[in-house]
Amino acid sequence: MRIDLTQGILDDNDEIAARTFERLRQAGVLCVGLLSSPGAGKTTLLEATARAWRDPMRLGVIVGDVATEVDSARLRACRMPAAQINTASHGASCHLSAGPVAEALDAFDLARLDALFIENVGNLICPVAFRLGEHQRAVLLSVTEGPDKPMKYPKAILDTDLAVITKVDLCPHVDVPAAEVEKNVRRVRPHARVLTVSTRGAPGIGPWLGWLDDMLATGGRTK
Amino acid sequence: MRIDLTQGILDDNDEIAARTFERLRQAGVLCVGLLSSPGAGKTTLLEATARAWRDPMRLGVIVGDVATEVDSARLRACRMPAAQINTASHGASCHLSAGPVAEALDAFDLARLDALFIENVGNLICPVAFRLGEHQRAVLLSVTEGPDKPMKYPKAILDTDLAVITKVDLCPHVDVPAAEVEKNVRRVRPHARVLTVSTRGAPGIGPWLGWLDDMLATGGRTK
Repeated sequence: MRIDLTQGILDDNDEIAARTFERLRQAGVLCVGLLSSPGAGKTTLLEATARAWRDPMRLGVIVGDVATEVDSARLRACRMPAAQINTASHGASCHLSAGPVAEALDAFDLARLDALFIENVGNLICPVAFRLGEHQRAVLLSVTEGPDKPMKYPKAILDTDLAVITKVDLCPHVDVPAAEVEKNVRRVRPHARVLTVSTRGAPGIGPWLGWLDDMLATGGRTK
Repeated sequence: MRIDLTQGILDDNDEIAARTFERLRQAGVLCVGLLSSPGAGKTTLLEATARAWRDPMRLGVIVGDVATEVDSARLRACRMPAAQINTASHGASCHLSAGPVAEALDAFDLARLDALFIENVGNLICPVAFRLGEHQRAVLLSVTEGPDKPMKYPKAILDTDLAVITKVDLCPHVDVPAAEVEKNVRRVRPHARVLTVSTRGAPGIGPWLGWLDDMLATGGRTK
């Protein structure tokens, strides 16, 4: 007899995630999960999003990290309500799970939110397998990581809805054209939705805000 | 009754790792493990090391990746003998384990090697817990990831022997001084050994080559 424990853990996780997905849908809150390598710019993108939003109090974020409250503190400083989960105290520290995320929802007044972000632990592998209740999942790829990451971490491309190429102001300094990263995303997933952003230069974060507006208008369903 | 499966897996792994450690020690081959986030520059550092070495055929590398042979192909192009392990076909894909590494050793003529590198999967969390038989472990931290990673991934600092701050030529473009990353490494581990390198500008990779020479002279034992 062989017992597949991993599948059991994933089934339990997915059941809680499905409840979170539905709870947020009924509350009219768009839920967007963010995945990336460490330091690809998840928190920086959310800071810029809070600054651009009509009222940052209408955005919320659940932040996962192995240790520290550094990121939630940064986002609260932008007036975005933030809950921190430190995964070192929740079993496997390499990803968020649906259980702690569902508990963290209670920290928010959902009736007052437009959107809730879930910023995962910096890791391009383990978080992909664990649904948290997100309506949409975005993976961030920094140009500083080099152009080959889509092929090396294919599930992070295949199991997310949007690829956001970040820090494109640094392209000339690292000799990595954003177009090459985009081409590699499409090698893994030909019809992937891909955006490029920078919080320090052109094109700014307009493409990302446009995508968010689209998602808010459709309740997180791709048209 | 509660069975702690994780501990059992780690015990089995550590037993194989201890045999690899001893096998390489007896063969007079220094074994250095490299850990980092995706795209922090592990392969680029090894390419530069191969170019600087008296004979790159006397270096070997076992490369771990979820998918692709991109990195081992790059290192073979620098005349460094390389074996690739794709972790997607070895159970947990988020880290190398001692078993496949021990098998990969057979691809090398150990009598002809000065040093064997083990380049782990890009991930600052899971690989830390799995010893592979390395005599020394180095963690690479790119300045492009921001200065806070040592606090967010403390085990990657605590359970390695050396921190290598990479891409320091990019410091002015990302507003992250290498000294700030180094200070944060020391907040986690006050007496940590820390080097800064760049393959595109000052200070080059001299500090890393110096450390390697020290390790070769002492058989991988810290003086």
